[in-house]
Amino acid sequence: MPMTFRVDAVDGAARAGVLANRRGAVHTPAFMPVGTQATVKTLRQSDLEALGAEIILGNTYHLYLRPGHGLIRELGGLHAFMGWNRLILTDSGGFQVWSLADLNRVRPEAVRFQSHLDGSYHEFSPELSMEVQLALGSDVVMVLDRCLTYPLERADAVEGVDLTLQWAARSRAAFDRIEPVAGADPALFGIVQGGIHTDLRARCLQGLREIGFDGYAIGGLSVGEPKSAMWEMVEAGMPDMPPDRPRYLMGVGTPEDLIEGVRRGVDLFDCVLPTRNARKGTVFTSRGRLVVKNAAYARDPRPLDPGCTCYTCRRYSRAYVRHLFQCGETLAQELATLHSLHFYLETMRRARRAVGEGRFGEWAREFLETYRSGAASGPA
Amino acid sequence: MPMTFRVDAVDGAARAGVLANRRGAVHTPAFMPVGTQATVKTLRQSDLEALGAEIILGNTYHLYLRPGHGLIRELGGLHAFMGWNRLILTDSGGFQVWSLADLNRVRPEAVRFQSHLDGSYHEFSPELSMEVQLALGSDVVMVLDRCLTYPLERADAVEGVDLTLQWAARSRAAFDRIEPVAGADPALFGIVQGGIHTDLRARCLQGLREIGFDGYAIGGLSVGEPKSAMWEMVEAGMPDMPPDRPRYLMGVGTPEDLIEGVRRGVDLFDCVLPTRNARKGTVFTSRGRLVVKNAAYARDPRPLDPGCTCYTCRRYSRAYVRHLFQCGETLAQELATLHSLHFYLETMRRARRAVGEGRFGEWAREFLETYRSGAASGPA
Repeated sequence: MPMTFRVDAVDGAARAGVLANRRGAVHTPAFMPVGTQATVKTLRQSDLEALGAEIILGNTYHLYLRPGHGLIRELGGLHAFMGWNRLILTDSGGFQVWSLADLNRVRPEAVRFQSHLDGSYHEFSPELSMEVQLALGSDVVMVLDRCLTYPLERADAVEGVDLTLQWAARSRAAFDRIEPVAGADPALFGIVQGGIHTDLRARCLQGLREIGFDGYAIGGLSVGEPKSAMWEMVEAGMPDMPPDRPRYLMGVGTPEDLIEGVRRGVDLFDCVLPTRNARKGTVFTSRGRLVVKNAAYARDPRPLDPGCTCYTCRRYSRAYVRHLFQCGETLAQELATLHSLHFYLETMRRARRAVGEGRFGEWAREFLETYRSGAASGPA
Repeated sequence: MPMTFRVDAVDGAARAGVLANRRGAVHTPAFMPVGTQATVKTLRQSDLEALGAEIILGNTYHLYLRPGHGLIRELGGLHAFMGWNRLILTDSGGFQVWSLADLNRVRPEAVRFQSHLDGSYHEFSPELSMEVQLALGSDVVMVLDRCLTYPLERADAVEGVDLTLQWAARSRAAFDRIEPVAGADPALFGIVQGGIHTDLRARCLQGLREIGFDGYAIGGLSVGEPKSAMWEMVEAGMPDMPPDRPRYLMGVGTPEDLIEGVRRGVDLFDCVLPTRNARKGTVFTSRGRLVVKNAAYARDPRPLDPGCTCYTCRRYSRAYVRHLFQCGETLAQELATLHSLHFYLETMRRARRAVGEGRFGEWAREFLETYRSGAASGPA
């Protein structure tokens, strides 16, 4: 069964939908935990299931370098390799090439770069990105795009859109030609670039629609531009998005960003923020961020987020989690990650319910008021 | 209800018993996972429950330094602090003072040392060790003993026994005087020292029995002496051990050591070996050790131990666990630790069953034959 997408409810621009293939369903709006190296750091796959994650993200660049897509294909694809039977979206690898690798040269044919692991040379092309993602058995494959950071000259943004469209067409052709690993039935998403220029983004989206994709992602945002510019780009592009295809805002963001994205019609999100922050001792709660490793919590018997039903909050105190961070114990990172991902996923589930009940605006106002109260760090 | 100990079955010198207090029962022979800093490294308390651990060990030295026994007492004791409701045995802190701290001076009154964390000065006495362990709410408190390493002059061993007996008497008196944290009903174990001199060990045990303890530990072994000397000490001392009290062989050991200890009448064991090795990429299996991080397993689809029913073996391949070790992902350590502790605890459960059925010798022979076959690292 190829991937399907159905919109169940609309409330203003916000949507509640279901993305599905034979592996299962993803209820949108959805947040995708990031599983960079075939693992969402510190968690087990059964934890992700228990948290209600229906789709996770895998990083093509990392898996291509280590352990290699050939090895993963040989072992039955990424789902079998990592013991995860629900959906996986893989990025194109491009973003990590720009941000992690020593970049040697971008040419229209391919990007030449040096591995951040061992300095070895590699060339990444749209064709190779497809080959890798299809060997992994990804459920949602992303085209290779030219992602540029902010600030950006208009001329460079134009060039970026041109290259993105060329690569999108080549990605589409390669995707249609290459046989995926057995059992996979992947969808292909295009990515809109164009910096903070609404006309360039409109042109990019138009070009992508002419090629034709199963979903459309908004890329090249949350790369340093003012937040107002980011939302302007999302809003301006939304009316041209095909309403029957999922929309994915890449690399975003904070709990507030998720609410603002849903409000504007975004269906899918991913971000390392909840997991990365958790590992460093900061968790997200219904009443804002909590730097649990702070000395203020050394004797605090309360859970991270009173009222939260996650594993960590049902069993452990701030004092204990703080002690574990002080000692450098990995259990600290596990417990904090479990909590913050629970909060993100539960927030998306609540947003979805609010859309279904036609009260998204009201729910969002209350959510943001509590979240911004800063009460998380308040006294007992 | 104070602690009780009952021997259910005897097979040769091997025993199957039950140690119990109001928190629960410990079926012996039992292996106690080591929870140094109020956490068995990388695991959650619910994991330990699922593994069937009925008692874990806490380290007095570490908890005294960080977060401090005052803080833990204030938060309701170690069980409440770490969210663990089953039994906890705490060591005296002495062994870590000898092995981790900068030791400044051993006097009969107290041991002066510098913290390995910040260089601060501390004095540890039998009285302070009792105060700390009773503040933690330990179920089994260990006396402060004078642990010496191998090789050892006889004169030093004599002095060590003298000091151990003095400190045992002072520990007993302090234990009887100090009020534990609310809800605790602790037992106190004595520790036999004496190097590899059977007469000194006999004298030490005799002295301890005159003071009177709820259980007797064999200390100062597995510190560098030949294995034959260790078993000679265990065997020689066993006939003088009160049969109605549990016997604890401290800091031992490998799976083979556990079998050999049970064969000679030991009821309790603890060791960092399974957990520490697991974190470094070596696991224990029914067919010997497996260095899973080795390149040989990069494409091995088999579980760590075919036939094993642990979480890791039911869900993950050697190839995946090896990949996680290669990437430095903490999930590698979690999965390896889960497996190796399962193997240790399951081995003890099987040993207990064999004792109950009067076939311990036969079972042990088969277990050791398979374990020593080295088949773990063999081809698929």
